[in-house]
Amino acid sequence: MVYEIALIPGDGIGREVIPEGVRMLEALSREFCFDLSFTEFPYSCDYFLRHGEMMPEDGLERLRLFQAILLGAVGAPGVADHVSLWGLLLPIRRQFEQYVNLRPVRLLSGITSPLVGRTAADINFLVVRENTEGEYSDIGGRLFAGTERELVVQESVFTRKGVDRVIRFACEMASSRPARHLTSATKSNGIRFTMPYWDERFRAITADYPELRCDQFHIDILTAHFVQHPDWFDVVVGSNLFGDILSDLGPAIAGGIGVAPSTNLNVERQFPSMFEPVHGSAPDIAGQGVANPIATFWSVQMMLDFLGEQKAGAALMAAVERVTGGGYLTRDLGGRETTRSFTDRVIGALGE
Amino acid sequence: MVYEIALIPGDGIGREVIPEGVRMLEALSREFCFDLSFTEFPYSCDYFLRHGEMMPEDGLERLRLFQAILLGAVGAPGVADHVSLWGLLLPIRRQFEQYVNLRPVRLLSGITSPLVGRTAADINFLVVRENTEGEYSDIGGRLFAGTERELVVQESVFTRKGVDRVIRFACEMASSRPARHLTSATKSNGIRFTMPYWDERFRAITADYPELRCDQFHIDILTAHFVQHPDWFDVVVGSNLFGDILSDLGPAIAGGIGVAPSTNLNVERQFPSMFEPVHGSAPDIAGQGVANPIATFWSVQMMLDFLGEQKAGAALMAAVERVTGGGYLTRDLGGRETTRSFTDRVIGALGE
Ligand SMILES: CC(C)[C@H](C(=O)O)[C@@H](O)C(=O)O
Ligand SMILES: CC(C)[C@H](C(=O)O)[C@@H](O)C(=O)O
Repeated sequence: MVYEIALIPGDGIGREVIPEGVRMLEALSREFCFDLSFTEFPYSCDYFLRHGEMMPEDGLERLRLFQAILLGAVGAPGVADHVSLWGLLLPIRRQFEQYVNLRPVRLLSGITSPLVGRTAADINFLVVRENTEGEYSDIGGRLFAGTERELVVQESVFTRKGVDRVIRFACEMASSRPARHLTSATKSNGIRFTMPYWDERFRAITADYPELRCDQFHIDILTAHFVQHPDWFDVVVGSNLFGDILSDLGPAIAGGIGVAPSTNLNVERQFPSMFEPVHGSAPDIAGQGVANPIATFWSVQMMLDFLGEQKAGAALMAAVERVTGGGYLTRDLGGRETTRSFTDRVIGALGE
Repeated sequence: MVYEIALIPGDGIGREVIPEGVRMLEALSREFCFDLSFTEFPYSCDYFLRHGEMMPEDGLERLRLFQAILLGAVGAPGVADHVSLWGLLLPIRRQFEQYVNLRPVRLLSGITSPLVGRTAADINFLVVRENTEGEYSDIGGRLFAGTERELVVQESVFTRKGVDRVIRFACEMASSRPARHLTSATKSNGIRFTMPYWDERFRAITADYPELRCDQFHIDILTAHFVQHPDWFDVVVGSNLFGDILSDLGPAIAGGIGVAPSTNLNVERQFPSMFEPVHGSAPDIAGQGVANPIATFWSVQMMLDFLGEQKAGAALMAAVERVTGGGYLTRDLGGRETTRSFTDRVIGALGE
């Protein structure tokens, strides 16, 4: 069987880490005897500057038949976010019903947490983020523009379908983990309609999972608990915005966003899922060859898992941790490895 | 001159810390020769259970002529947040145009940060939170209730007046501090209407303050930076929701919400301002006499500052830090002091 993978390196350091991800996948495919076929798509801010759009009109159509998409990052100085992100990243997440954004947080071997006394035993949880609706909506607008009376409204939309399916998925994930603990992020004391609804559906869905220990925290104190009690968490489910926040804060206590991976998952596999390092295009360090490729490798591991090549994925992360555990780190983690030299080391460690 | 102070102990540990705040104020008034008159209001969840509302119909009217309100906390198990908070706390903030919520974060002497190697020199910033509009709106509702098609919408409303005045206040605060650095919390890459508007107004208002160094971060990565680079921040301004999150996360790196104070400020002084520990009613520890009164004392210091009694406020915080610096801490900080014994020590340290 040949796995058909779409590559979208995108912008900035996306173009530096995706080629290393491909190199890694090729090494793994030789070692674990599976076949991959890559098709690269140039959709990016560069593409936008040449064509006036982030991807061609049939862009999504072209991506639809792939099993997985490996995306680097989207965004460049001088191109507005509502163009780059709302023209590429968010349409993929939505059109392909990638309604779960999975973001594991774990302290890898050789990486020290900025939190006093915290080790790998304390930091090992999974953020499950709603990925298609909620606070990221394009309903809204402006009244009395340009005057003193000016006001802007923004609608958040939470649907039964959208809320239920992500909470149910989080329940399934929690049920499959030893701790069987699920935490819901909310803010129903301040956000009056959508968040109480989220709580209501959380209660309804979790009632089907009596084996789970469930709790909820308001997002304000939850961010504090991530820092003060990271060991309290196992699976944490949140809305699009709250999941976004928690999945940048989580990595901050575990090596930073240079290591943070993600899966944009279409659970039913009607459409491709997308695998993506969380770090973004990082224009400040782009072009220097110093980006940390761990977030990409970890995303590749999630992709291999998804494709059914669990062994290859496990071998990859074991190799990454042999290298980091040996003290070889990129600049963001205080080391001197480059994107390329780090990758070489991991490839070298694959067979060990 | 007699300062007229309204006291609302409220619920839970609010009733334990406010009396100590009063005791402290009385000690300070003797030492610094000013006069206070306290009027206590029983508005609380208890009041609700007896009267069916959190405060009488003319409750706000009764509070209006005080110079300051000292509030403990509102909220109790069994009373819905939309009753307790939307029936008392939020109406006070809104009716009295307390549009700035000021929340300083500073590592006090004797308190250790959970962040490796961080000292008082690294953690000293001020969160300026919009306090009357934004994401906390009561516009919204539910469609197709109880069916599979059910959906809930929630409106955020940002007005020119509301956004400009809080950003301008933050600029003034930043201008008065040595670092002259102002950071804006945004999420304009995901939240399409209100957040780009916030950015636009941030640019417009800060243009009047060329002496400031200004930057902005999306809320996701900003929470990560609070943990990884707390020393980057001086004054941070955010919307109602983002300011709320940052002002719980900030204290998490500086001793927790047991020490976090706040001022709900009506800048123009047409209405009373309200001073409030951030911690909430904490039903889990209420009644045990172990609540940390530092958040209340620090809020009292902000109140004294506001009233023009800066010397008394400075003496109070100096005494607090002499006590914490001597290793006397409440349970939340790993010590054995009770609310009362800690207060006694601070009163004892006032004269030193
Ligand atoms: C209780 C709640 C509504 C409140 C808020 O979010 O404003 C609290 O968290 C705070 O920060 O003062
Ligand atoms: C770029 C941005 C729109 C995106 C998001 O908030 O979803 C990013 O922060 C992420 O977390 O994938």
